Amino acid sequence: MQSELDRFLSEWHRVVSEKDLLALHGLLAEDVSLGAPPYFDRLRGRDLVHHLLGLILHTIEAFTYQRQWLNERELALEFTGRVGRLELQGIDLISLNDQFAVENLDVLIRPANAVDALREVIAPRMASFLSAAGQSTE
Amino acid sequence: MQSELDRFLSEWHRVVSEKDLLALHGLLAEDVSLGAPPYFDRLRGRDLVHHLLGLILHTIEAFTYQRQWLNERELALEFTGRVGRLELQGIDLISLNDQFAVENLDVLIRPANAVDALREVIAPRMASFLSAAGQSTE
Repeated sequence: MQSELDRFLSEWHRVVSEKDLLALHGLLAEDVSLGAPPYFDRLRGRDLVHHLLGLILHTIEAFTYQRQWLNERELALEFTGRVGRLELQGIDLISLNDQFAVENLDVLIRPANAVDALREVIAPRMASFLSAAGQSTE
Repeated sequence: MQSELDRFLSEWHRVVSEKDLLALHGLLAEDVSLGAPPYFDRLRGRDLVHHLLGLILHTIEAFTYQRQWLNERELALEFTGRVGRLELQGIDLISLNDQFAVENLDVLIRPANAVDALREVIAPRMASFLSAAGQSTE
């Protein structure tokens, strides 16, 4: 199992560092759910989650993974980055399914003003996407 | 080392669940720093950090630890709770020093509206405390 986990992690880090959104899609389970910083209700489904993750990855500059905790298929990956001039610290809490695809992902970020700045950039783009897809985040 | 870590964890969980603020003080290193949800700059020093942690513990209702990741003296403890009617998910990222006292603690919480609600309750009380102590968070 360790080697499948290692493969997942090395591919995840490559995808994030290269912003390889096509490959990111392949790392997500079809029924993946995302707990995003602005919403409590989880966003569900690969296309929706993939779209929001892509927006987050493109909005956070100098995205760099820091500490990492692994517990079987439950992962906690700390990162740092910036939105504009605001520095931020965040963590990805990832649950992998038995195929080592991402089944649940929670993204927690501090401080609050960086989350606000991130939301300001992302919310209108998410709204366009959801409206085109006939969905809503509420 | 494992047994000292176990002792720390069981005491930390007891302190949080019983809101035993006196004992919480004893778990913090004198030079402890806190990365709180609203501020990027770290708050430093045992009395200040202790005070803010106490406010957070008393403001978040139904505080319950969930997943837990341990990596030597670096810990990631997920929790859930509520501020008023808003549910929240958070994580404590804890670094212990070689005495197994808390040297650094980062608290990340989602979603943003729960962080805002927490800040609304806590900010005026922190301001009073800091003003009495002759400090500022900026």
